[in-house]
Amino acid sequence: MNKYQAPVKEMSFALFDVVQADKVFAELGADSASRDIIEAVLEESAKFTQSVLAPIYQSGDSEGCRLDVASGSVSTPTGFKEAYQQFVEGGWTGLTAPEAYGGQHLPETVGALVKEMIDSANLPWGNYPLLSHGATEALKQHGEEWQRAAFLAPIVEGRWTGTMCLTEPHCGSDLGLLKTKAEPVADGKYAISGTKIFITGGDHDLTENIVHLVLARLPDAPAGTKGISLFIVPKFKVARDGSMGERNPAVCGSIEHKMGIHASATCVMNFDGAEGYLIGTANKGLNAMFTMMNTARLAVGLQGLGLIERAYQNASAYALDRLQSRSLSGPKRPDKPADPLIVHPDIRRMLLTCRTLAEGSRYLALQASLQVDILERSESAEARQAADELLGFLTPIVKACLTEWSVECTYHAQQVFGGHGYIAEWGMEQLARDARITTMYEGTTGIQALDLLGRKTIQLQGAGLKRFLGLVVEFCSGHTKNVQLAEFVAPLAQMAQEWQQLTMEIGKATMENPDNLGAAAVDYLFFSGYVALAYWWARAVEAADRSGNAELAARKRALARFYFQKILPRTFSHAAAIKTGAASLMELDEAAFVA
Amino acid sequence: MNKYQAPVKEMSFALFDVVQADKVFAELGADSASRDIIEAVLEESAKFTQSVLAPIYQSGDSEGCRLDVASGSVSTPTGFKEAYQQFVEGGWTGLTAPEAYGGQHLPETVGALVKEMIDSANLPWGNYPLLSHGATEALKQHGEEWQRAAFLAPIVEGRWTGTMCLTEPHCGSDLGLLKTKAEPVADGKYAISGTKIFITGGDHDLTENIVHLVLARLPDAPAGTKGISLFIVPKFKVARDGSMGERNPAVCGSIEHKMGIHASATCVMNFDGAEGYLIGTANKGLNAMFTMMNTARLAVGLQGLGLIERAYQNASAYALDRLQSRSLSGPKRPDKPADPLIVHPDIRRMLLTCRTLAEGSRYLALQASLQVDILERSESAEARQAADELLGFLTPIVKACLTEWSVECTYHAQQVFGGHGYIAEWGMEQLARDARITTMYEGTTGIQALDLLGRKTIQLQGAGLKRFLGLVVEFCSGHTKNVQLAEFVAPLAQMAQEWQQLTMEIGKATMENPDNLGAAAVDYLFFSGYVALAYWWARAVEAADRSGNAELAARKRALARFYFQKILPRTFSHAAAIKTGAASLMELDEAAFVA
Repeated sequence: MNKYQAPVKEMSFALFDVVQADKVFAELGADSASRDIIEAVLEESAKFTQSVLAPIYQSGDSEGCRLDVASGSVSTPTGFKEAYQQFVEGGWTGLTAPEAYGGQHLPETVGALVKEMIDSANLPWGNYPLLSHGATEALKQHGEEWQRAAFLAPIVEGRWTGTMCLTEPHCGSDLGLLKTKAEPVADGKYAISGTKIFITGGDHDLTENIVHLVLARLPDAPAGTKGISLFIVPKFKVARDGSMGERNPAVCGSIEHKMGIHASATCVMNFDGAEGYLIGTANKGLNAMFTMMNTARLAVGLQGLGLIERAYQNASAYALDRLQSRSLSGPKRPDKPADPLIVHPDIRRMLLTCRTLAEGSRYLALQASLQVDILERSESAEARQAADELLGFLTPIVKACLTEWSVECTYHAQQVFGGHGYIAEWGMEQLARDARITTMYEGTTGIQALDLLGRKTIQLQGAGLKRFLGLVVEFCSGHTKNVQLAEFVAPLAQMAQEWQQLTMEIGKATMENPDNLGAAAVDYLFFSGYVALAYWWARAVEAADRSGNAELAARKRALARFYFQKILPRTFSHAAAIKTGAASLMELDEAAFVA
Repeated sequence: MNKYQAPVKEMSFALFDVVQADKVFAELGADSASRDIIEAVLEESAKFTQSVLAPIYQSGDSEGCRLDVASGSVSTPTGFKEAYQQFVEGGWTGLTAPEAYGGQHLPETVGALVKEMIDSANLPWGNYPLLSHGATEALKQHGEEWQRAAFLAPIVEGRWTGTMCLTEPHCGSDLGLLKTKAEPVADGKYAISGTKIFITGGDHDLTENIVHLVLARLPDAPAGTKGISLFIVPKFKVARDGSMGERNPAVCGSIEHKMGIHASATCVMNFDGAEGYLIGTANKGLNAMFTMMNTARLAVGLQGLGLIERAYQNASAYALDRLQSRSLSGPKRPDKPADPLIVHPDIRRMLLTCRTLAEGSRYLALQASLQVDILERSESAEARQAADELLGFLTPIVKACLTEWSVECTYHAQQVFGGHGYIAEWGMEQLARDARITTMYEGTTGIQALDLLGRKTIQLQGAGLKRFLGLVVEFCSGHTKNVQLAEFVAPLAQMAQEWQQLTMEIGKATMENPDNLGAAAVDYLFFSGYVALAYWWARAVEAADRSGNAELAARKRALARFYFQKILPRTFSHAAAIKTGAASLMELDEAAFVA
């Protein structure tokens, strides 16, 4: 009942006309990334995700994963292994990976669109290859050459997958508390011992080996985050020449019973002296892990986008089909017993919220991905610096806002279905349950907000924000005389000013009392996300006007109007809440919270 | 892992000190409702709900209901039947029912608090007795005397339960489309045939009989809502003398697979010439059904409140216990490896959102229930008229806002738990799944919003709003010189004025274009809910000041400050969205929604 049609045309419009990635690709010498080639890739990806992944989304949820406790082996639901084989055969595992290791080295922006399709079609399935991408990045940037040869090539080929092993029972957000130990043994190897929880894809039956990237402490490591190192710990031991050996004592002890993503195994992993190798510098593991985490954070943001898109598609189809009550302004289908839901303004409000958040999120996510491409490929240090600052700033916004919006929009999709939205058969409730993890894993929304406001903004004197505001000012001042855009440019320019002003006020308040930062963070995150999308919606209208396609131009203008009139005003509440600071949050003592 | 402690002290404070129900009880001559007696009732209810219902909440969810297809019989989860027996033995089924039919006739306000405890402890279990309450009201107000004797007495006694059978596969919100038929047969009986879906408690094993109240059409009935009649159709036939006969062909055909409330059977009911009696006047069934629906809507609002309370209790306990990261303003527990979550402003933001919405919702729900008591008991036609108008206005706000807030607050509770919030074992995800039905059943939030703004406000020239605003003005003008309250009274008075102004603007816009009503409805609903809670928070501070308990006064003041500073500003966004009208919602034609 839960259909998916990849929005290839819209994606192409977003990538080339709105974000104008082709200009950047040309500058970067990414010659293989022409519009024709990329559209062909997107078409292929659409076929694969629609025909292979989407049909096993609901069945995967009801079947779930199974653990054979004796062997610690996890079986994925029916069809998952076959789908993964087709994924490998289609060359998708190496889409954006370096050519040196067998990849096709297409831009990350293209990878992001393929990723979005996978997440729309079957997010829990997508979690298995997802973390391979993070492992690839960590090995690329921090691994030794032999490690890349031994581990990266099979990952790119799709024969192995990767995981990230960070969380322990007593430490999630606060990695400084972690206890897993790494003892040096012979031949530059280490014996890893400890328990990790919430390990996505910690075990499965899709590939012959799994490469765990594990945070652990060396015997002489300092306490806290400065004593954490990163290790490669494969499921089956791997020699330096890449040959696979015997089973490593890195075993799934149990799988969690979760609200959703039932088809994605979330494992407790027991490392019992498992053989591993150090990646990068001892005690600097958090840096390497951040590489993976940032990649994973953008990827989780795309999961949010994928869910919004699929929720929208199903809810709008239902609203066009389902007859219920008459329009307030008189019957629209007098020949039928009732009008379709789509005539009701509140149904449209919910659908347009999903639609404008989906399209706007796509522009924003592509902007972020494009910075990854620049960082990787540009020969200009200045361009890389700019991309790095902008990417650092956008990553928590993409991760947190897109996932929060997926919680909201899957909610709306359920409401459009009425009571049927609560019934498994129709599929909307699965989207809502699956969305619910995205605001938690890879750092909760609260953690993203602290990263955005604390680390990326206050600590860096607003470097990333200035970059973004520079783009807004450039756009607004480039279109002051554009009558077609006036209704968007004026409020956008004003919001940009308020954004800057608000940031300065928070900076000042934080110097007086650091709790003001924590108090403002989530509201600041949302404020930023809504203004960022306003910028992209104005640009989308401009791009559609430029296209010469009148229907497209009218449609984007109508959507942008909705966004500016109905969604952007949410910033008023966030700004007002920010301005009242931390006082009312901190006034009660702890005892008053005892229920 | 998911605890519950009934907040008896807070409930008593809400009922007597804030809402000051005792004054009203005295006027109504409800002598049995002294504070001592009611507090004793609440203590007993606390014991029952905590020790009997709460322990089978999680097990009931994982076990779910089972249908024996051959007999159409539903089995409830382990312990549900025994809990229901204890509920009957404790006299809870007749708590607020008329003495003439064996009830104790305690005020509905007291019933509301008991109901909240049931919903906190085990909402899905609570759904079985819930609809008995609606059936009681319908029989009281619309039934004939023999019907009351035959059907009401066993319901009050707890031997039978009631259901509401409205929805059909092709009609949910739009009851005018319903097709179920009623054919007159001998002895003033009717043969009912048709299929009803989403029937909560349509079958179960808790009682010896089930009384279905069924909407159906007589052979000569006009089309649409003016041709709907209400029938009593018992599971086992009942003669006019109340004696039970053979099985009626009113059978559960299947039970739905739902996102949550797994322990609450949601049935497809097949009526195949089932024997029934007409209640009230032919073709006026919707009136009688509204009686049940209004009762049920308040009851669902209380479900929202119950979920928020339990979510808050668990999240705050976790935040006090779980050590993770240091406070931004320096370590608070240097002796420990990290500070408890409660030191972080954003964690407090989420907890205080739950706390202030729970307490504020309780005041508001009690205000609504008190109008039911006045309506039922007052001898003054004027007082009844006032109560009726206020109740009509408050019912959609209570239903929709409290349930929407339960979706939000169970979300916050999950976030406080981080990844553990997604794991079944910890129980927060169950609260979130269970909350998700409350914004749908008994009329979606969109339907409540249309009821509030269209039927209850615009159509009635703001009768209910004027009553509420009258209370606000009375409170504000009674405390103009109260320095302690100044920080609340001034913004409250301003918000009340804006509420009135906004209502007039919408009325005007609606005359120009009826779609403006539909466009504004949900934002207006939330706006109303937030201002209503601001009134009650100001009154709570005043009540706490009056109590002479300095700790209580300081606590309520701190909570009210949080509410006014962090929650009330949400009205800014809603007001701004309202003011832009329907244009941006209606601009796109239907084709543009095809995905």
